[in-house]
Amino acid sequence: MFIHMKELQYRAKPERPDPVFARKLQEVLGGQYGEMSVMMQYLFQGFNCRAEQKYRDMLLDIGTEEIAHVEMLSTMIAQLLDGAPADQVDEAAKDPAIAAALGGMNPQHAIVSGLGAMPTDSNGYPWNSKYIIASGNLLADFRANLNAESQGLLQVVRLYEQTTDPGVRDMLSFMIARDIMHQNQWLAAIEEIEAIDGPIAPASFPRERTVTEATRQFMNFSVGEESSMGRWANGPLPDGTGNFEYVANPTAYGEAPVLKPAAKHQHSTLGTGPYVVNETVKN
Amino acid sequence: MFIHMKELQYRAKPERPDPVFARKLQEVLGGQYGEMSVMMQYLFQGFNCRAEQKYRDMLLDIGTEEIAHVEMLSTMIAQLLDGAPADQVDEAAKDPAIAAALGGMNPQHAIVSGLGAMPTDSNGYPWNSKYIIASGNLLADFRANLNAESQGLLQVVRLYEQTTDPGVRDMLSFMIARDIMHQNQWLAAIEEIEAIDGPIAPASFPRERTVTEATRQFMNFSVGEESSMGRWANGPLPDGTGNFEYVANPTAYGEAPVLKPAAKHQHSTLGTGPYVVNETVKN
Amino acid sequence: MFIHMKELQYRAKPERPDPVFARKLQEVLGGQYGEMSVMMQYLFQGFNCRAEQKYRDMLLDIGTEEIAHVEMLSTMIAQLLDGAPADQVDEAAKDPAIAAALGGMNPQHAIVSGLGAMPTDSNGYPWNSKYIIASGNLLADFRANLNAESQGLLQVVRLYEQTTDPGVRDMLSFMIARDIMHQNQWLAAIEEIEAIDGPIAPASFPRERTVTEATRQFMNFSVGEESSMGRWANGPLPDGTGNFEYVANPTAYGEAPVLKPAAKHQHSTLGTGPYVVNETVKN
Amino acid sequence: MFIHMKELQYRAKPERPDPVFARKLQEVLGGQYGEMSVMMQYLFQGFNCRAEQKYRDMLLDIGTEEIAHVEMLSTMIAQLLDGAPADQVDEAAKDPAIAAALGGMNPQHAIVSGLGAMPTDSNGYPWNSKYIIASGNLLADFRANLNAESQGLLQVVRLYEQTTDPGVRDMLSFMIARDIMHQNQWLAAIEEIEAIDGPIAPASFPRERTVTEATRQFMNFSVGEESSMGRWANGPLPDGTGNFEYVANPTAYGEAPVLKPAAKHQHSTLGTGPYVVNETVKN
Amino acid sequence: MFIHMKELQYRAKPERPDPVFARKLQEVLGGQYGEMSVMMQYLFQGFNCRAEQKYRDMLLDIGTEEIAHVEMLSTMIAQLLDGAPADQVDEAAKDPAIAAALGGMNPQHAIVSGLGAMPTDSNGYPWNSKYIIASGNLLADFRANLNAESQGLLQVVRLYEQTTDPGVRDMLSFMIARDIMHQNQWLAAIEEIEAIDGPIAPASFPRERTVTEATRQFMNFSVGEESSMGRWANGPLPDGTGNFEYVANPTAYGEAPVLKPAAKHQHSTLGTGPYVVNETVKN
Amino acid sequence: MFIHMKELQYRAKPERPDPVFARKLQEVLGGQYGEMSVMMQYLFQGFNCRAEQKYRDMLLDIGTEEIAHVEMLSTMIAQLLDGAPADQVDEAAKDPAIAAALGGMNPQHAIVSGLGAMPTDSNGYPWNSKYIIASGNLLADFRANLNAESQGLLQVVRLYEQTTDPGVRDMLSFMIARDIMHQNQWLAAIEEIEAIDGPIAPASFPRERTVTEATRQFMNFSVGEESSMGRWANGPLPDGTGNFEYVANPTAYGEAPVLKPAAKHQHSTLGTGPYVVNETVKN
Repeated sequence: MFIHMKELQYRAKPERPDPVFARKLQEVLGGQYGEMSVMMQYLFQGFNCRAEQKYRDMLLDIGTEEIAHVEMLSTMIAQLLDGAPADQVDEAAKDPAIAAALGGMNPQHAIVSGLGAMPTDSNGYPWNSKYIIASGNLLADFRANLNAESQGLLQVVRLYEQTTDPGVRDMLSFMIARDIMHQNQWLAAIEEIEAIDGPIAPASFPRERTVTEATRQFMNFSVGEESSMGRWANGPLPDGTGNFEYVANPTAYGEAPVLKPAAKHQHSTLGTGPYVVNETVKN
Repeated sequence: MFIHMKELQYRAKPERPDPVFARKLQEVLGGQYGEMSVMMQYLFQGFNCRAEQKYRDMLLDIGTEEIAHVEMLSTMIAQLLDGAPADQVDEAAKDPAIAAALGGMNPQHAIVSGLGAMPTDSNGYPWNSKYIIASGNLLADFRANLNAESQGLLQVVRLYEQTTDPGVRDMLSFMIARDIMHQNQWLAAIEEIEAIDGPIAPASFPRERTVTEATRQFMNFSVGEESSMGRWANGPLPDGTGNFEYVANPTAYGEAPVLKPAAKHQHSTLGTGPYVVNETVKN
Repeated sequence: MFIHMKELQYRAKPERPDPVFARKLQEVLGGQYGEMSVMMQYLFQGFNCRAEQKYRDMLLDIGTEEIAHVEMLSTMIAQLLDGAPADQVDEAAKDPAIAAALGGMNPQHAIVSGLGAMPTDSNGYPWNSKYIIASGNLLADFRANLNAESQGLLQVVRLYEQTTDPGVRDMLSFMIARDIMHQNQWLAAIEEIEAIDGPIAPASFPRERTVTEATRQFMNFSVGEESSMGRWANGPLPDGTGNFEYVANPTAYGEAPVLKPAAKHQHSTLGTGPYVVNETVKN
Repeated sequence: MFIHMKELQYRAKPERPDPVFARKLQEVLGGQYGEMSVMMQYLFQGFNCRAEQKYRDMLLDIGTEEIAHVEMLSTMIAQLLDGAPADQVDEAAKDPAIAAALGGMNPQHAIVSGLGAMPTDSNGYPWNSKYIIASGNLLADFRANLNAESQGLLQVVRLYEQTTDPGVRDMLSFMIARDIMHQNQWLAAIEEIEAIDGPIAPASFPRERTVTEATRQFMNFSVGEESSMGRWANGPLPDGTGNFEYVANPTAYGEAPVLKPAAKHQHSTLGTGPYVVNETVKN
Repeated sequence: MFIHMKELQYRAKPERPDPVFARKLQEVLGGQYGEMSVMMQYLFQGFNCRAEQKYRDMLLDIGTEEIAHVEMLSTMIAQLLDGAPADQVDEAAKDPAIAAALGGMNPQHAIVSGLGAMPTDSNGYPWNSKYIIASGNLLADFRANLNAESQGLLQVVRLYEQTTDPGVRDMLSFMIARDIMHQNQWLAAIEEIEAIDGPIAPASFPRERTVTEATRQFMNFSVGEESSMGRWANGPLPDGTGNFEYVANPTAYGEAPVLKPAAKHQHSTLGTGPYVVNETVKN
Repeated sequence: MFIHMKELQYRAKPERPDPVFARKLQEVLGGQYGEMSVMMQYLFQGFNCRAEQKYRDMLLDIGTEEIAHVEMLSTMIAQLLDGAPADQVDEAAKDPAIAAALGGMNPQHAIVSGLGAMPTDSNGYPWNSKYIIASGNLLADFRANLNAESQGLLQVVRLYEQTTDPGVRDMLSFMIARDIMHQNQWLAAIEEIEAIDGPIAPASFPRERTVTEATRQFMNFSVGEESSMGRWANGPLPDGTGNFEYVANPTAYGEAPVLKPAAKHQHSTLGTGPYVVNETVKN
């Protein structure tokens, strides 16, 4: 069960409207790695959590915080849209500043949402739940979370560079801080999990049932060997089972496949003449 | 430029057809974390790579390998569908085994693809490119890659448990091995990158421009403090800038927002009477 | 079965081309609440109608009219695109008017559709059938229809404000009239249905099987009680079963949930060691 | 800002696992009219609200309640999936009950989510934000809300019929109660708004700028006149501007459209020979 | 403008309900190559048609016919769903026939659509307008149409094999006939267009501006030369400009690309230290 | 299995950056008929091929070539984005050229992809696998392929007109050549297949089971007979079974449908009172 406090977690007030930046800011609200994604990802991981209570509680704490981030961004976007010149069509022909504002806006802000934030990205593409994952495996999911905070921080930093509005930058500087904290958080949580089961997710598949040499080979599927120069091709495996091997010319384990001809009822085979099953049925 | 070798990277031959398992196996071909996802993610990261050549080469090596995994899975699925009883409708009424096969199949395998693999997941949902990311930042992207290999391996292991066909298990045991290797690979690559810039992605935002105390606070947004017991709330921050702080009762930095009334041309305000801009225009 | 008349239901001729407005007008053709949505929603409600013939006939009458609205909008958009300067790339660098037209257009109008209307919204997002509903319950569906005509009219009115072209405004003034009529129509139809079964859709669930006190309580899930001041928290319930109650501090009926640990074959539990089912199977 | 309470708003505990019903129940969690839809719809309407504070507060109260409904449903689904026989493939061949459970499940519950709830509908289709609307116009949006609660209640009632598990029915009987309350709530709120501006949304477009006769005509676009027998074709218009008129044979206001030939740079016109713009450019 | 006739174009009455086949039949109603696709494709091609009137008229004739096919299929599906045992959950445990019907159905038919047809495919995936094309170029679009009728006929034939209900087969035998006619129609229309401009769409790009040798080379991008044995590698080019050439070992025209390092404001480059633009701005 | 060569198949180097054209060029990379579509379509047709080896080999040769086209386009787009002025927000207010570049760009190129190509179209809509088909029937699929190459060539030609950059035009002139070749290829392959089975796909449905007169009738579903003047309404049928017939006034074969009233458990019927199944169950 949830309770709403009317105060925003952090200030969200621009110095001046900027409908073009409002469009861009949608990316970190409703985009692939926006706040809606982390909010829903952490909430679903928490609701489904079958592990110790501290994990469930932690996931729901951060999921609940992210709802507040969705709130802050929505509030900011609505204010950036204040005074969007949606009706000044004739002035736009004369004034390049109005023209630019009209041209760079998301038209749906003026047609659909009444100058409010939308649950979409910067191109008006709707948020969808395939952006998120809750797999039940904590190590896999915490890696998804670390990735989400890394991509999200990167996008917020890029957006910070694309505005000079002090109010917007103020809010983004808080969001940047929280994304840094959340990367720290997932790094620490991953460290805790890896200490139990090692770094492969999931840990529980019996290693002897794999093609074991293939667990350490970097296979060079190109002409040229620049890829041999990285850590991924040299030295000990992070999972501690041996060393990387660089396979310069990988060979095929399998053969060229030959599929059976199509079943007749699929009507795909050339030159076979008319065919129908259950012929005795009328029609 | 690419070249095709007719041999499969690994054997992909089931002992017997199993159209229901064919449907399930689609998940790791065309699902959110299937082979199409890693194939396209690595190729796009490689094509767009602006870093040292060894990274580009490595990304394209593994991306090229993943095309071969798409090929193996497609070949396996087509064979699992051999002999699917798509036309035995009357027999199905009598024979529960046929009924079960017909009922658990993806009907599109028999209607749309001619008993071939489809670029979709186990529910027939199409693969789409929002599953993948190529952000230009190697640390962020390698974390996306480590996540993809973790979620992917988890799904393959679960599928391995859901079949007893030795041919299918044989192929999956190779895919499991490669996913283990690829987790090793991304762990090693991340280690290499973090050694340069530290563990926050991106590293280049000036820390003094953030709300610095918020980079170390775990905020408890729930009643109860189980979340205080994890590594994420205690001890040194992974980025080395101090220690985690547990904030049991976080307070709001912001105020309750009050948005301006709607612009008249948005036709959203109550009780304001008829309104039209540019009144002199005919109509 | 349907017949086409070549005449448009209403004039659809702009005074001058305007490719930027063509893009905007797409919203009410192929957007969430565009004419394609009402067309398909009414046709499917009609085709599936299991109630008295007058409802089926009425639904198909209005669905058939909406096909004509799709036709009018498509015709208008094609003409707004006439003369779009898709090839004047060098002139655009010098002439801001051409630059603005090129910049604000949907590029797909010049690349994909050959300066024709597209079945998409103003951001190029494709129409999809999750915009519509045909549930079989007339009261529920007529409310969906009333909502669609309300959102649709609002969008058309906003678009009317964003152009001064008399030809476009002429056509929109007809569409506005029809949307007003259609709101009247659904209001009247809803009145007719509610007279039979009351205002709750569906009416047929036995009220004694619900948690009856919860059918009248407004629950205040926030700090502060501004929400107590509306009609929704005071006075008689519209369904006639009592009065609204304002619950200032709602308490939980349930307990904190504790889920069972994960099944072993899900490979999600920490620290459990290697595991495989059906161990005797080869691989 | 939000706070989480660990208790569920209502009990969510099935008497026994039922993975097939878990799949069905997903419809009202992540489907078109599921709880995720009302949660996000109310939150976005609230965050964007530019009207009196009582509306914002009310919208956020109910939006916050709906997060708790997402939590209840997720909890229920995870427990319905407890003990799903995902690994008993050989037993399934012998035991029809296991076969049925395996066949009717969503395979992603066993492959992707680790026997947890997913943010998708009963066919595994992901929730997306085009299911919701926040237009800025309260009357239009409250009608969207009334529709959502009507469709939602209808679906929950149908699901209630499809289970006999007392624990599931218990939870659904609470959700049914809340959906009844929420229909009451939106009916009352609509009544309050219509008292100010009348029943057409939006009210503010000057009626004299419409094609006024078209605001009262029911047009019969079919052969046969069953549609003349409803309230929508007889008696006073709900907006009080006159009476409905039944137009048995509507005539076209417009003419047959003739579009201009395609621009040459579109390469669409037959028989025109080679063409290229900017010929002096190399290539 | 359109008119509705109440009669169906052809009989659509099954001998008995079959909710599992109802689900399958959805594929040719709302799937990628279903009747909704050809209906919308032909209507949009017609509405946008800038060529001679006979093309526009023909396109709208066939588009109008396809609306009738959507109507027939919807009617059939609703009747196949009659008597679907959506509420017989306890009986299902005992009676395999009921279990099979419940298991193989689309659950949304019983939860969402009230036992009516849905605008989706056989997996419940919604129809979307990216299934269709209206490019403005008649030759390209008639090829799209021929493809749609070919894929559509193939699917209808496969569905015919999967039922023995005489009523269903009767209706399908009419749809098969129309798909055959429509293939004939597009073949004839293509013949007419190719007689004017030749077989390359579009014809109007000046051939001398292409890399002309590449217009006739089949490039063998694999090890092994089975692909040399087809008509596509031997004999005259269909466009009459020469003969096919088989290039057994194609060489690269281009070089290995090297991209510039990332711009600093993208925060993607390793080891570059803190960076911010517009430093003088507060925050 | 696949191998990567570092060289591009053709030069892909613009003379100067042009982020607005980069956005447009995305259409033929990740759009409905872009290179990702043909790449995945040919690969899936090849992987699933159950016909003679020469078809499989040919499909995989061309599919492999198309991966190289994706590579070329991605490389070109990344370079067109070099130097995109994503951070020059204040300069943009003064310099219309910068403003235009910022306004016409896809904002995601600067926020999400780090100035790299994205797997999306020119409006940022993601590529999805419903763009492609692999049906198992060679004639149907080769027609899909011919359509894809026709739509694709048309789009590339239109893009060629929209730039004057010699480097871009150089690359496009190669892609145009290959699209011409690939149209030639599919025309030749279709000719080969039609020589075996005739021009109807699939050929194998027994003609006597169709409504045979309907296989030759062009039905005029409109007022006016312009559509009688084309080849599609006159002369011999392409499939050799007779002549086209023009039906000026098609009549209905079917009757007006009347559906059964809704099942009670669907809660859709008016005026029926409370209802619940399985009444003895608690709740």
